[in-house]
Amino acid sequence: MMNLMNPKSFAPLSRAACIGGGVIGGGWIARFLLAGIDVQVFDPHPEAERIVGEVVANAERAYALMTDAPLPPRGRLTFCSSIAEAVLGAEWVQESVPERLELKQRILAEIDAAAPTAALIGSSTSGLLPSDLQSGLANPERLFVAHPYNPVYLLPLVELVGGRATSPETLTSACTVLDAIGMKGVVIAKEIEAFVGDRLLEALWREALWLIKDDICDVETLDDVIRYSFGLRWAQMGLFQTYRIAGGEAGMRHFLAQFGPCLQWPWTKLTDVVDLDDALVEKIGAQSDKQANGLSIRELERIRDENLVGIVQSLKGSRGGEGWGAGKLLADFERRLTAQAGVPVASDRPGPLALIETRVPAAWIDYNGHMTEHRYLQLFGETTDALLRLIGVDTDYVAGGHSYYTVETHLRHLGEAKLGESLSTTCQVLSVDEKRLHVFHRILAGEEQREIATAEQMQLHVDAKAGRASAAPGAILARLRPIAEAHSHLEWPAAAGRSVGQRRVLA
Amino acid sequence: MMNLMNPKSFAPLSRAACIGGGVIGGGWIARFLLAGIDVQVFDPHPEAERIVGEVVANAERAYALMTDAPLPPRGRLTFCSSIAEAVLGAEWVQESVPERLELKQRILAEIDAAAPTAALIGSSTSGLLPSDLQSGLANPERLFVAHPYNPVYLLPLVELVGGRATSPETLTSACTVLDAIGMKGVVIAKEIEAFVGDRLLEALWREALWLIKDDICDVETLDDVIRYSFGLRWAQMGLFQTYRIAGGEAGMRHFLAQFGPCLQWPWTKLTDVVDLDDALVEKIGAQSDKQANGLSIRELERIRDENLVGIVQSLKGSRGGEGWGAGKLLADFERRLTAQAGVPVASDRPGPLALIETRVPAAWIDYNGHMTEHRYLQLFGETTDALLRLIGVDTDYVAGGHSYYTVETHLRHLGEAKLGESLSTTCQVLSVDEKRLHVFHRILAGEEQREIATAEQMQLHVDAKAGRASAAPGAILARLRPIAEAHSHLEWPAAAGRSVGQRRVLA
Repeated sequence: MMNLMNPKSFAPLSRAACIGGGVIGGGWIARFLLAGIDVQVFDPHPEAERIVGEVVANAERAYALMTDAPLPPRGRLTFCSSIAEAVLGAEWVQESVPERLELKQRILAEIDAAAPTAALIGSSTSGLLPSDLQSGLANPERLFVAHPYNPVYLLPLVELVGGRATSPETLTSACTVLDAIGMKGVVIAKEIEAFVGDRLLEALWREALWLIKDDICDVETLDDVIRYSFGLRWAQMGLFQTYRIAGGEAGMRHFLAQFGPCLQWPWTKLTDVVDLDDALVEKIGAQSDKQANGLSIRELERIRDENLVGIVQSLKGSRGGEGWGAGKLLADFERRLTAQAGVPVASDRPGPLALIETRVPAAWIDYNGHMTEHRYLQLFGETTDALLRLIGVDTDYVAGGHSYYTVETHLRHLGEAKLGESLSTTCQVLSVDEKRLHVFHRILAGEEQREIATAEQMQLHVDAKAGRASAAPGAILARLRPIAEAHSHLEWPAAAGRSVGQRRVLA
Repeated sequence: MMNLMNPKSFAPLSRAACIGGGVIGGGWIARFLLAGIDVQVFDPHPEAERIVGEVVANAERAYALMTDAPLPPRGRLTFCSSIAEAVLGAEWVQESVPERLELKQRILAEIDAAAPTAALIGSSTSGLLPSDLQSGLANPERLFVAHPYNPVYLLPLVELVGGRATSPETLTSACTVLDAIGMKGVVIAKEIEAFVGDRLLEALWREALWLIKDDICDVETLDDVIRYSFGLRWAQMGLFQTYRIAGGEAGMRHFLAQFGPCLQWPWTKLTDVVDLDDALVEKIGAQSDKQANGLSIRELERIRDENLVGIVQSLKGSRGGEGWGAGKLLADFERRLTAQAGVPVASDRPGPLALIETRVPAAWIDYNGHMTEHRYLQLFGETTDALLRLIGVDTDYVAGGHSYYTVETHLRHLGEAKLGESLSTTCQVLSVDEKRLHVFHRILAGEEQREIATAEQMQLHVDAKAGRASAAPGAILARLRPIAEAHSHLEWPAAAGRSVGQRRVLA
């Protein structure tokens, strides 16, 4: 996250209301807040503020690990004492109350009566039909199902399902909003109970219960079967695209012709529903305890979130950085945040530029528990990128065929950083000419701002197509020179201009 | 991959036989070869050699992207003209012929009659019962199902299923072998048709076909529902561990008590089997064509493999480098390869040490199509690690509380590397004293060995617990000094001893 920026508001909404603040409602609240949207919450639960606070803290931690894109300033969170107060001025109202039809109908009617006419109303239900939810509303056309997945702050999917009275514009608007906050809205064509995702989950879940009940395997073996095989496929391509590949050059129709007959095989017990009696509950509970191997739910949650971040980041690197699936969604979101981060504002402060604030993510830690060597250079590289955006070398500029390339770096390691520790970076511009940009970066760790690494870098302005150095245009230099001028009054870093192993500083 | 090493054989087998060399058989062949095991193949298909060659090439490419651990020398691949010839001297025979019971029974009888008495016999069947497969064999106790998942060279899972006559020792031995070649054998407690993985897949697949037939959604939407939500969860934790978290602190029994009633809801059509008639095949085929958006099967395969590599690598970084699931499996495999890479052999060659050979993986490429800046330092860091292993600073040494830390690095960027391009690194030792190790690394790219980057580094021997520099022990220095002595005759690198931006080399 950068400071010194003046972010234009990119938020698709300025205010949202969340009715119900449990694990799902809390996830929605975090998504909105982190996208710069103010959120008004109503939840009569006495511990609502604590629960929401925990989910938002988890979400902030996950976002800090997942992206260095310049997030907008966090929205304002307000707890309200009634539904009417919470929906006041809201452009999106999200209902996440317990899964009972008559309760949801009553609350949605109250929302509909009090919310601004233009507000969208989404329900987090995982199974109820939107036509039933909207039946008693005065404005049923704006009610739809927006069904997310846990953890809502990391899994991007939202199933959007309209009822008989929902207007097509409602679903289009909902998609636009979700896209702008980095989520993935998919419209389900027809309403059925449980929609698409939970249908699929339910089918697999029933079969899994049979396998455990009949002692074909235990829960750990079953999970291993999934996560060492098709789970890895599904994280990126789902079912049909995976089978398309399995069909080979002959394609999907060939695959179906081969695989079709299997449906007739006596393979499954799916024609019957397993009785989830006390004995089976206890059997699964005991096997699950053994599988967890002493890890608490909180520890498992942290591991899950770090793994999700890692998987999404790895998918972001797919196809030469274009991204794939959930990773492309993140890449697009980051590009948009970066493009919309706004025009730089000259610093009034006398010190070096403060450019990056982040925390040490799990992926940066080596097996000795230290931050890995090359991650220091990654952070310095991001610091240079932040400086370059500040002087106008942004995505469009680079797409136009010019950029700054690093030609040399002198790194010094002065200390260490631990998992989760806060890191910030500064940049001091040492000198500038038409082609060259000479900078000195520092990484500061922890609240006490320990200097743990420095990097002296020489950047060269290049014509990427011609593959050679070229003079930077006047507009870039006009932004760069005032910074260099301001920094010329700073003390010259003792480590600048030194070679590896040199013990004394040359004059 | 390192040279200058003298790898002790760590292979659990010296020779395997593969009967059938299609996509699945070819995957087994690649797994064995890359683990240093010789493979004898029998497949009467006229194009068997080409097909196997393609799968092995894919596997080698994937391994080069996935790991820098020192793989043993690749096994020898031999195509044989009969089953009897192929199984000669084999310790593991893997049958991967078409899925027809009487064909498999006939071929397994032929294998059983010709294979060495001690050989294990695995069948790749995805659905047939091992008791039926072994019914006519003279030595049925050594026959078992070893069911892998496509792509076999990347997905580690093998379901191991014994029949009535299979001995427990057979399954134990099979697990040991799979573990040693980096795969994950899981023993299924009771034989049923389709075992565990395909049961689960079949259940979800039937439900998916209903959803498409009834136009609830199209195949792309269905895949998006999976890959933007629970697919990301299942890649790391499977089903039950995921639901354990969903149950919160109240745990698995609480989750089951809440979720149990859902089994009674009228959510699924699973009590009936969809008719996969021509109309439905064509509907799915057309939707799949649209989803592929012009990407060929080969392109989709490459994307899938790169994504799988990225996901497994990200899971390898989980829990501070300990790894999780498929990533922990890879981390364990790499640690074993590294530990078993053997005692270093002094170089007779006069030049710098050649330490790493690899290729540029997708995750190293930025959105401009260039290798990202910090990946150069990553590769230099791996070069230093290889040098350190060579002089005895290995996992055990570091676990004992001492190591070399990098204190300074001077990087120069001289050229660029493209996706998939071969990279090698060299190391020239400039000077050594009791505490300090001064090195100069180079990265060479492509067949023409272009010098694209150099790194001058100062390493300091440290007592990690005390957190300060300490003298390296005699055993380490005794290995290091002969290298430094040999390198003292090499030309001093013109770039060594220079500072950032310095134009002339100092004397």
